[in-house]
Amino acid sequence: MAPDALSITLAALADPTRRAILARLISGEASVTELAEPFEMSLPAVSKHLKVLERAGLIRRGREAQWRPCRLEAGPLKEVANWLEHYRRFWEQSFDRLGDYLGGLQAKERRDGCKDEH
Amino acid sequence: MAPDALSITLAALADPTRRAILARLISGEASVTELAEPFEMSLPAVSKHLKVLERAGLIRRGREAQWRPCRLEAGPLKEVANWLEHYRRFWEQSFDRLGDYLGGLQAKERRDGCKDEH
Repeated sequence: MAPDALSITLAALADPTRRAILARLISGEASVTELAEPFEMSLPAVSKHLKVLERAGLIRRGREAQWRPCRLEAGPLKEVANWLEHYRRFWEQSFDRLGDYLGGLQAKERRDGCKDEH
Repeated sequence: MAPDALSITLAALADPTRRAILARLISGEASVTELAEPFEMSLPAVSKHLKVLERAGLIRRGREAQWRPCRLEAGPLKEVANWLEHYRRFWEQSFDRLGDYLGGLQAKERRDGCKDEH
């Protein structure tokens, strides 16, 4: 079975170097050489990561033979965000539960404080 | 180098069966047998997927020896959502650009329409 687009995107993102490359592209397009610099990686190693990102549609490369700058393509990231929305209420609920718990603790402290005063 | 937590989460999510298991758990906790049903998969195959999800902290399993229900844990999904936030303006920008383009087309149509009338 061929992997679906969302699985290809998530697999491409499941690597800290590839996420660091995307983070670098937030500030604008860059050449392979520029992208390789901070990682102390060989150009072929960086090129391999770029191919994975390109196949996932997360970057696009210019057509100029010499310089071929890479730029960020956010479409697949939006698909991940859309998928995540189905789960938002779960982490917001846990946050609410934590809030309730902390609120309860504070109320108890206030009550205990009042007891001490009387 | 040991993979970082975000990479482990994203790799666990990069599989349609594992995402379908999480989607099933939105409606409440379920046993391995219940989770296996819709996929026509063997229990060991489902158990293997559950282990990947559990290692990523995306599910938690009950302690009852007989039934050990699985439940969704949304914490790691929130981490993915937080990471994605850095990129939101990129897909919102592309949407804005599309909006500008469509708006431009409509304005042109209105102008052309007026020309025809005169």
